[in-house]
Amino acid sequence: MAKPTALSGFPELLPAQRIAEQQVLRTLAETFELHGFAPLETRAVEPLDQLLRKGETSKEVYVLRRLQETSPEGHAGLGLHFDLTVPFARFVLENAGRLEFPFRRHQIQKVWRGERPQEGRYREFTQADIDVVGRDVLPFHHDVEVARVMLDALGRLDFLPALTLQVNNRKLIQGFYQGIGAPDVDEVMRVVDKLDKLPEDEVRRLLVIEAGLTDVQAGAALGLAAISASDDSFVAQVRALGVTDPLLDEGLEELAAVVRRCADLVSDRVRIVADLKIARGLDYYTGTVFETRLEGYEWLGSICSGGRYDSLASDGRTTYPGVGISLGVTRLLVPLMQREGLAADRQVPSVVLVALPDEDAREACDATAQRLRRRGIPCEVAAAAQKFGKQIRYAERRGIPYVWFPGTDGGPDEVKDIRSGDQQSADPDAWTPPPADLTARITTSSTEQGASR
Amino acid sequence: MAKPTALSGFPELLPAQRIAEQQVLRTLAETFELHGFAPLETRAVEPLDQLLRKGETSKEVYVLRRLQETSPEGHAGLGLHFDLTVPFARFVLENAGRLEFPFRRHQIQKVWRGERPQEGRYREFTQADIDVVGRDVLPFHHDVEVARVMLDALGRLDFLPALTLQVNNRKLIQGFYQGIGAPDVDEVMRVVDKLDKLPEDEVRRLLVIEAGLTDVQAGAALGLAAISASDDSFVAQVRALGVTDPLLDEGLEELAAVVRRCADLVSDRVRIVADLKIARGLDYYTGTVFETRLEGYEWLGSICSGGRYDSLASDGRTTYPGVGISLGVTRLLVPLMQREGLAADRQVPSVVLVALPDEDAREACDATAQRLRRRGIPCEVAAAAQKFGKQIRYAERRGIPYVWFPGTDGGPDEVKDIRSGDQQSADPDAWTPPPADLTARITTSSTEQGASR
Repeated sequence: MAKPTALSGFPELLPAQRIAEQQVLRTLAETFELHGFAPLETRAVEPLDQLLRKGETSKEVYVLRRLQETSPEGHAGLGLHFDLTVPFARFVLENAGRLEFPFRRHQIQKVWRGERPQEGRYREFTQADIDVVGRDVLPFHHDVEVARVMLDALGRLDFLPALTLQVNNRKLIQGFYQGIGAPDVDEVMRVVDKLDKLPEDEVRRLLVIEAGLTDVQAGAALGLAAISASDDSFVAQVRALGVTDPLLDEGLEELAAVVRRCADLVSDRVRIVADLKIARGLDYYTGTVFETRLEGYEWLGSICSGGRYDSLASDGRTTYPGVGISLGVTRLLVPLMQREGLAADRQVPSVVLVALPDEDAREACDATAQRLRRRGIPCEVAAAAQKFGKQIRYAERRGIPYVWFPGTDGGPDEVKDIRSGDQQSADPDAWTPPPADLTARITTSSTEQGASR
Repeated sequence: MAKPTALSGFPELLPAQRIAEQQVLRTLAETFELHGFAPLETRAVEPLDQLLRKGETSKEVYVLRRLQETSPEGHAGLGLHFDLTVPFARFVLENAGRLEFPFRRHQIQKVWRGERPQEGRYREFTQADIDVVGRDVLPFHHDVEVARVMLDALGRLDFLPALTLQVNNRKLIQGFYQGIGAPDVDEVMRVVDKLDKLPEDEVRRLLVIEAGLTDVQAGAALGLAAISASDDSFVAQVRALGVTDPLLDEGLEELAAVVRRCADLVSDRVRIVADLKIARGLDYYTGTVFETRLEGYEWLGSICSGGRYDSLASDGRTTYPGVGISLGVTRLLVPLMQREGLAADRQVPSVVLVALPDEDAREACDATAQRLRRRGIPCEVAAAAQKFGKQIRYAERRGIPYVWFPGTDGGPDEVKDIRSGDQQSADPDAWTPPPADLTARITTSSTEQGASR
């Protein structure tokens, strides 16, 4: 078999990178579960008619067919899911009678999109979603909840560059555009959403030409979009624009509540900002909307987005409102791996390499290792009874910090920290590495092993 | 949208079932990592020519195509992987220069096969694989290692019915058939492998007709297949058949070593048996082979299988021998969920429901919950300020064991174990539930929530 090559858009991680990714995924899942979100997993496939309901994503879907498909129907109607929201909405409808509402779930899974691959855009990638869904009603406080949960989770990933969760509210902007008398509110939103791609003057021109605003109205719309604040001072700034509308009032109150009630989770690494130009495209969001920027990686766009849907799912009789946020794990991590060498500081989970004096001692060394494992210490026994110097280098190459030497002539075992050279006698039923050494550390030094694709 | 229905062969779990599955997956990963196996994940797709190399599985492969595929090549050449061995072999070849050998990895992922679905056979299912791969050479002691690691992992899943790891050795049976003068050793192996489907007399007949054995040779081959032992006493039984061959000797020694060196991990729930009729079909195994039977679920076949390959992968110049075992997680758990109601005893990760006296108290209740979370206690705040009796039933329906009541009029908070009714004052910075309550328990009572599909 010739040497295989990578597939563009399908990133794979080397062991030290994968250990880092796995730590991130475990931290996310643990944090979501601390907040009572149940782990959910849906099948990878959905009926094509479900996947194509919104039309716009149609060309991104991977369709499945069995190689020896005979029947014309068969699996011709299945495709890989391109997000975790469509499958979740379907799962809720399918199992509504067996779920307790409000239903909180987290879902960490691969999704697939047949897009043209580029840095930060992959054909296979992992997302981590949290959502709360209600039956008929879902009180606003869940909007605050999902923001708090995601901020808590992101705050624990302390190796990341600084993050800003940008929040806005559809009611606020729709109410404002109504309040200024815009003839087509959706069109105004669509044009204002171009502010991160077009110069302000061009947007102003389009607001007049395409959205039918007067110059004064366009100025007001741009005035609103220019407002951002890390506390509820934005309310006074909006009020100063002199526009009144009941929906605007509702949106202002909700957005102020999100920002205020997340304040205790803010740090210099994880911030929350009310940013009144955020609209989340023309999706079906109906209240709070979220986007997230990573400092130094603004070109990635939003790495963590979501919002409130008044109808996440509906079977005609019952409507299920929801609010959620989706973190693009691959999209966040792979660029950091490629550009900053983000990876774990070891290639194996082992904290200890048990050295092997000679092959006959393997059984005894296995027993020592098993005693360490019984107390939760990951370890491995040397693969071959080489000279101890070689075994230490074996550990070094893998980033294993400790080498364990079985006692000779009835003497005690000894353990060596191969970073410091410090060596001391140790009992396999009692010795414990410092907690910081128990699991690999995530580093961003460029001396770590090569980048992924 | 009409109520969606399940897709045959694509099982999905309800929350309490998924919590149980997730505990299993975490236990497996943690155990594998205690033994130094690095977590690895490969992309879900492989080039079709790789997937079809062995031919026999061709009709099971799901082929991908982008919905709007235009170029004739494009993704016409990709399919979903049907196991984790083919992708792992490809990963090793592709990244050999960046890996340290021997390379130990575990890989827990979904795989897809377009087979006709039936109980225990799914179109989408999760496997948990461990493998050790060497460059050029891989000493035999790794055969013992993978058996020990899997026994250790299975032993921790204490809610499972009893399991028997059946071990055999290809060298042993090939050497034996050579030793009796069989004209076509592979054909003998193929016929003997039918012993679990056909009566012994029919197999004896086929050994003569199809494998060209004499009656005496056929009797010896069946005599070997009848031998099984939970210790190395099988060696004497084989010797008593009077056959000699150097390859047989090597196989006997290896198999005896596996059984002997796993003895300390055996319990009444997890056993190891040298079973000399196990051959693992006509796969490319070259030494140790493994299968596993679940007591009461023998009709499932082997739920955990593997063995030694002298050539897991090769690029023509370098050969990578390997040894590994693959556990069929979905295949093991879903029948137990359907037949014995296996599930977690709660539908949410929360240990505590923080009761809400009135909506104005939400912020204070969130703060209490956050103090509990800071010490690793999963909890949630009641969704609505209903009467406390209703909030207790809310917890009950979800299986949450404790309800936390904020203190009134400056009094202390109280926590109630809603199973026993016991209620006591508690400090959110100090109270801890008993360790057994911290995570959900896996139960098999049929009173748990409905089965999956």
